[in-house]
Amino acid sequence: MTTRRSFFKKTCIGLIAASMPKLFGSTSYAQQPAVAGNPQDTFRLGIAGYSFYKFKLDQTLEMLKKVDVHYLCIKDFHLPMKSTDEEIVAFHEQCKASGVTGYAVGPIYMGSEQAVDEAFAYAKRAGVKLIVGVPHKEVNKKKTESPELLKYIEGKVKEYDFKYAIHNHGPDGLPYANAECIMSYIKNLDSRIGMCLDIGHNLRTGADPIADMEKYAHRVYDIHIKNITSPDKKGCGIELPRGIIDLTSFVRMLRKVKYSGMCSLEYEKDMDNPLAGIAESIGYFRGIIDATK
Amino acid sequence: MTTRRSFFKKTCIGLIAASMPKLFGSTSYAQQPAVAGNPQDTFRLGIAGYSFYKFKLDQTLEMLKKVDVHYLCIKDFHLPMKSTDEEIVAFHEQCKASGVTGYAVGPIYMGSEQAVDEAFAYAKRAGVKLIVGVPHKEVNKKKTESPELLKYIEGKVKEYDFKYAIHNHGPDGLPYANAECIMSYIKNLDSRIGMCLDIGHNLRTGADPIADMEKYAHRVYDIHIKNITSPDKKGCGIELPRGIIDLTSFVRMLRKVKYSGMCSLEYEKDMDNPLAGIAESIGYFRGIIDATK
Repeated sequence: MTTRRSFFKKTCIGLIAASMPKLFGSTSYAQQPAVAGNPQDTFRLGIAGYSFYKFKLDQTLEMLKKVDVHYLCIKDFHLPMKSTDEEIVAFHEQCKASGVTGYAVGPIYMGSEQAVDEAFAYAKRAGVKLIVGVPHKEVNKKKTESPELLKYIEGKVKEYDFKYAIHNHGPDGLPYANAECIMSYIKNLDSRIGMCLDIGHNLRTGADPIADMEKYAHRVYDIHIKNITSPDKKGCGIELPRGIIDLTSFVRMLRKVKYSGMCSLEYEKDMDNPLAGIAESIGYFRGIIDATK
Repeated sequence: MTTRRSFFKKTCIGLIAASMPKLFGSTSYAQQPAVAGNPQDTFRLGIAGYSFYKFKLDQTLEMLKKVDVHYLCIKDFHLPMKSTDEEIVAFHEQCKASGVTGYAVGPIYMGSEQAVDEAFAYAKRAGVKLIVGVPHKEVNKKKTESPELLKYIEGKVKEYDFKYAIHNHGPDGLPYANAECIMSYIKNLDSRIGMCLDIGHNLRTGADPIADMEKYAHRVYDIHIKNITSPDKKGCGIELPRGIIDLTSFVRMLRKVKYSGMCSLEYEKDMDNPLAGIAESIGYFRGIIDATK
């Protein structure tokens, strides 16, 4: 056994670093290869910043590096909306040093025109052209959908030429339960207003995420991939291989509709210590991608 | 955001435990389901104990539970060969409490008839019928293949009715480089002597693990799944999605030949902190299994 262990110690440590996928250097949303094994795919694999809400940016980037993922949807706890321009530059430099690109901001809840203004200004300063958002109003102290604010956002997407992806949030009483609900509010608005399809929350309302991916593909600008334990309000986040969503069919659908945005894992189990679950989930999605190419 | 976080805190923690695959209770090699998503498969997913050589049994079992894997090939550092019967009982009880079955012992290096006797007695006391072994002799202080000892082992497999799987170890000067080498030594011996096909080391000799799986399927009794960085002596262990072995083709071959043993991940990178790499690798293999069923 000594011989065997010695072999790996002496010869492999340096070599692994040399032969691993390139982690450092300049990256951009357009240039980065998609995912291991299938550079032809138009979609890319990322992680939603919310998965790391208990972790600082350096810890988050360390986990992204560990699982070889290069795209992060930026949450405000990693880059506060009141950041100075210098702080924004420092954020991107820190990401770049880990080979990570912050590709969008959000989800951002916005309950007023002023909040919308601030979100668009923040996204512009952060250098991204995609906002994942939840535009809402308060009715009887409860957040609900806001057609008025959506009309205001329509003006902003025209002004900035940004995309605005509304995040659906299931049957828990938060605005925009599923893809169908979002579409009912945006169908007559500028096509730059679309959705961040959260496939877990979509199924928690009983709606089929695969069928909805096909039906609404032309307005899906971001995706939260996840898996859940049951197709109803009780459904909870779980490692991708262990839930009920048929992710193989979902990946096939992404190819069928030529989805060209991000598939960002939003992992909401074990949030105090998510790395193993994130790694299992990222591995699973890559396995499906490689096995179905 | 508070509402969202609260939802998961209040409603999901208990539910996840209830809806996860059953981890506890009695298990046996025959009863356990194969792997998530495809109970029809005859092969099962395990982990080679060597992956945890820096960890005690309790830490090992915690990692197995974390990645929802239920089979462990027992290494001597977790269950020493000199263990008393009471210690062996305690070992299995500890495994069972984590839903884990120790399905075989090894790899065990054995350089004498006495060492072979001890290994078979140990396996019998440990309650397994499969030994992964490396029978060898010393020539000029170098371990090399031993036809004489194999002949002796043939008597033992008849006496015990155990299977003996020789582990191949690549181009590093250790005995049994690849599957072809093993077969050249065992082809005229009792068919209970076979191999533990280490697909990484096999490819490191330039031999195709997928073709060899087909060619030698009738004598493959255990498998070390892994991936490597290059198809030669320089090749090092790496997370399954990131290496050069086409594991999709490998899984298809397992089904084609109706392999009915274990696929045990042997993960040899980051051995001080292997959980994330193990999780990514187990997830990847499960993704392939689910996507190709």
